[in-house]
Amino acid sequence: MEFKVIKKDTNTNARRGVLKLHHGTIQTPVFMPVATRGAIRGLPTDDLYKMNYEIILANTYHLYIRPGIEVLEHAGGLHKFMNFDRPILTDSGGFQVFSLSDLCKVKEHGVEFRSHLDGSRHLFTPEKVLDIERVIGSDIMMILDQCIEYPAEKKDVIDAMERTIRWADEAKTHYDRTFDKEKQAAFAIIQGGTFTDLRKECTSRLIDMDFPGYAIGGLSVGEPKELYNEISEFTAELMPEDKPRYMMGVGSPLEILNSISHGIDMFDCVMPTRIARNGTLFTSQGRINIRNKNFEKDLSPLDPECDCYVCKNYTKAYLKHIFKMGEISALVYNTHHNLYFMRKFILEIQNSLENGSFEQIKKKYETIY
Amino acid sequence: MEFKVIKKDTNTNARRGVLKLHHGTIQTPVFMPVATRGAIRGLPTDDLYKMNYEIILANTYHLYIRPGIEVLEHAGGLHKFMNFDRPILTDSGGFQVFSLSDLCKVKEHGVEFRSHLDGSRHLFTPEKVLDIERVIGSDIMMILDQCIEYPAEKKDVIDAMERTIRWADEAKTHYDRTFDKEKQAAFAIIQGGTFTDLRKECTSRLIDMDFPGYAIGGLSVGEPKELYNEISEFTAELMPEDKPRYMMGVGSPLEILNSISHGIDMFDCVMPTRIARNGTLFTSQGRINIRNKNFEKDLSPLDPECDCYVCKNYTKAYLKHIFKMGEISALVYNTHHNLYFMRKFILEIQNSLENGSFEQIKKKYETIY
Repeated sequence: MEFKVIKKDTNTNARRGVLKLHHGTIQTPVFMPVATRGAIRGLPTDDLYKMNYEIILANTYHLYIRPGIEVLEHAGGLHKFMNFDRPILTDSGGFQVFSLSDLCKVKEHGVEFRSHLDGSRHLFTPEKVLDIERVIGSDIMMILDQCIEYPAEKKDVIDAMERTIRWADEAKTHYDRTFDKEKQAAFAIIQGGTFTDLRKECTSRLIDMDFPGYAIGGLSVGEPKELYNEISEFTAELMPEDKPRYMMGVGSPLEILNSISHGIDMFDCVMPTRIARNGTLFTSQGRINIRNKNFEKDLSPLDPECDCYVCKNYTKAYLKHIFKMGEISALVYNTHHNLYFMRKFILEIQNSLENGSFEQIKKKYETIY
Repeated sequence: MEFKVIKKDTNTNARRGVLKLHHGTIQTPVFMPVATRGAIRGLPTDDLYKMNYEIILANTYHLYIRPGIEVLEHAGGLHKFMNFDRPILTDSGGFQVFSLSDLCKVKEHGVEFRSHLDGSRHLFTPEKVLDIERVIGSDIMMILDQCIEYPAEKKDVIDAMERTIRWADEAKTHYDRTFDKEKQAAFAIIQGGTFTDLRKECTSRLIDMDFPGYAIGGLSVGEPKELYNEISEFTAELMPEDKPRYMMGVGSPLEILNSISHGIDMFDCVMPTRIARNGTLFTSQGRINIRNKNFEKDLSPLDPECDCYVCKNYTKAYLKHIFKMGEISALVYNTHHNLYFMRKFILEIQNSLENGSFEQIKKKYETIY
């Protein structure tokens, strides 16, 4: 892995970078569509190539449960299994273990849990998670961490943070000893809840371990927007300048713009695809919902400024009709449009960072969203 | 509309034809994918062009209920509304009125019914149905008929047949008086249940009205396979040589091959798309179901002889995984594959009729299916 900041914004901490990974080179800031189980929900994989997405995210927990490591190993890893030859980042699965599985027990050596699908018992340790990600063949492997809910007692947040740091240490040792660093990078995840002192301590101790990249975890878990902004800005400033910075599970166009201005390089979120399936669409004029009664006879495209194939081929009236009728293609079209919007949005930001117009772009979206 | 038989099989009644319609020319025999509400279930419309489908079927009843005639008129017809510029055939909606709507009452002048969606009251007369199809802009308009269930008393079948014939007469008068015949063709539907004498009478009386084309209706409604074969062959032989012959709602590859050998030119069926959504796929080795336990680690394509984009890009193992996980793209891939199979199947039949190998092709599929 190689990361270079090629341009810095003069008024904010925003930066434009290039990240070289085993399966390809990524321009940052970057938005990664989410293919939890090896498929983007609602979108044929081919469409990712058409939109020129450079990297996607998949989930270690979900892939470990189904199809399972044996199948993925037999297929030669996730890239071959899903036929996507560009970089893939995998979540550690920690968050999913806590939020999805039954009977999840955090032990000092790892997490015991039962599959949410068949109740089978499993154990995730820092080493085990990396071993699974080795089989998956992720270009970027997130390591096991403990995400804590909001609100939480400070002593519980400290506990989770200490565990996260210890696990990171174990993961780093395992990574250094057994991985081909040219092929797979391991990123650490900064925890510490909404406490600045804990965020500072966690960041500093993880930096000492010298991971190839760092992520901010444990945000967007229910805390107020102001607190989210404060903690993410505070943490981003502490992160190494020369390494990629990833904000996990974020977000909306505005959240992404804010985080970019704080110096974050990488994002993933299910939101653009999830709201698409619910009929909500991003446009250059803001969000619209295709169920809007006024669209019944509206023969204009979703977004007059969009040149995606949905906007070039279908009207709001048609898209409303097929969405209301429950047609599968309505979900495909909506998902395509929103991911196309996100891709264009990110390219616009990259471009603005190159030509010094980032603040203008940020303001433009602030008036719309 | 113009129809020409360009080649006849020497051993069967099968024929190869060319049907010129307002929106384009169709090679027959032809299979029409079903876009009931103006969308193929599970498939982006663009895929129809990629597979080079020449005509699709939509449903008058469904489109009349939603989005409704006002919206379709405002959009300039169904072709523009759904952005499909090739020929469209519309069902009369008669079958759906009987099978879907609440409180359906057959009167002498038409059918009174309530919408299955909102309970609103409506009346379909032979004229009204054509008027709706005028707004839709169908290249081929099926006229209102009365389909009767199987089994049925002969007197009830006679009643329904007499009504169908009377309605055909009213429809033909309305068609002759008010339609542009270059743009829209009206096809009559032969009823008569499983009684050969009634089928004969119905066919003969409808032929006297000189419709541009004829369809066999009221089959595939639960009658035994042998009876279906007997009646369809019997009826097909009575239909005009110089006009297109359409078998409604059929069917499986074998049923289509049988009907082609009886001289039928046109087919439609939801089966290929419906079974795809259920995980059943057509292959050159017969039907398979993607849920098959043995496919878990099967890295071969659905069909080694298929060159559709699904078979070129994905393995059974992957398709099984995403189908089991309920991914929307699994439905899209399965649907694409089955419609690609049907298209190739029909092209193979057309080709065999041109070079005199129809019986070989028929035998080939009889050993597989």
